[in-house]
Amino acid sequence: MKTELLELDTSDRTFLDLTSQVRGFTRDLGDGLVNVFVPHATAGVAIIETGSGTESDLRDALERLLPVQDIYAHRHGSLGHGRDHVVPAFISASVTVPVIDGQPSLGTWQSIVLVDTNPDNPHRNVRLSFLAA
Amino acid sequence: MKTELLELDTSDRTFLDLTSQVRGFTRDLGDGLVNVFVPHATAGVAIIETGSGTESDLRDALERLLPVQDIYAHRHGSLGHGRDHVVPAFISASVTVPVIDGQPSLGTWQSIVLVDTNPDNPHRNVRLSFLAA
Amino acid sequence: MKTELLELDTSDRTFLDLTSQVRGFTRDLGDGLVNVFVPHATAGVAIIETGSGTESDLRDALERLLPVQDIYAHRHGSLGHGRDHVVPAFISASVTVPVIDGQPSLGTWQSIVLVDTNPDNPHRNVRLSFLAA
Repeated sequence: MKTELLELDTSDRTFLDLTSQVRGFTRDLGDGLVNVFVPHATAGVAIIETGSGTESDLRDALERLLPVQDIYAHRHGSLGHGRDHVVPAFISASVTVPVIDGQPSLGTWQSIVLVDTNPDNPHRNVRLSFLAA
Repeated sequence: MKTELLELDTSDRTFLDLTSQVRGFTRDLGDGLVNVFVPHATAGVAIIETGSGTESDLRDALERLLPVQDIYAHRHGSLGHGRDHVVPAFISASVTVPVIDGQPSLGTWQSIVLVDTNPDNPHRNVRLSFLAA
Repeated sequence: MKTELLELDTSDRTFLDLTSQVRGFTRDLGDGLVNVFVPHATAGVAIIETGSGTESDLRDALERLLPVQDIYAHRHGSLGHGRDHVVPAFISASVTVPVIDGQPSLGTWQSIVLVDTNPDNPHRNVRLSFLAA
């Protein structure tokens, strides 16, 4: 299996657009499925539009739905860090995208985005894996 | 890879049951994984029961959790359209289902459903892709 | 395709850690993708940390976001059971994890967890399927 571990820096960033890395990874690979997997318990992968406000809308929605408050049983890390551990139950660590002739078959406005609400760890990995048809 | 792009009309419909199309697509394909992927930034795919009220319960839940109000940074489209862009962060554009002897191994009450909260665009595509074992 | 149907008992348990079963299933299978699929309309699979409070934090979050109240159109089962049918729209029935040399490439703190909020049915299945590279 062709697989690659991206090393990323999320300092001061909740969202990191991985689309160009995924495109580079699948180029020349023909047809198949590409899996994007985050091996961390406080991050997920979302396929959303970027650059038109959706990142901040998603940040606001997460703050409303899973507030950074002292309400979590998980007690490690900074105040409210427990919510970072709940995020991946809703925004999964794994997403799979069809690839045709080396191109992820994304829609015009779709980007593959790492969602990392945890400010305590800026060093992140994402694993890309390709299964050929 | 066997892959097919469905052309769908979601006029006046938030939910569109794709199960029969997926079953038709995988018939005769043997064992493998079928990926259902929506190439739009304002729709997702959910595996839920249909016909017993869950569609309206999910619509109500989305309205409570991501209200159609003037609170979004994304400013295109009709009022509150920004929330349609947040939906796929929670209801992913991609789902993968095991296929055994040409049949998606769904449970008795599971249907594969397009969730499209965006009323502005009734012309939708869904890509079905099959990876054989 | 190597595939296996786990038979599980979720009596009095909302969360069931499946990681060791998945590890046992993929051992000796080399490289590929493992799909974990729940063939039930009232359960999902999440990749989260276990044993540090996140299970109860997720239970609380689900209770806040999808309360067990008499607000659902779905009328079968016990009071508020309609919400169990909404859960899998947000916590998907399907997750796919890359496998390298027989090992699911999970992060240190990640576990693959069945999330079953429905107390009415303790007999549950989970299907594991492996697609080799």
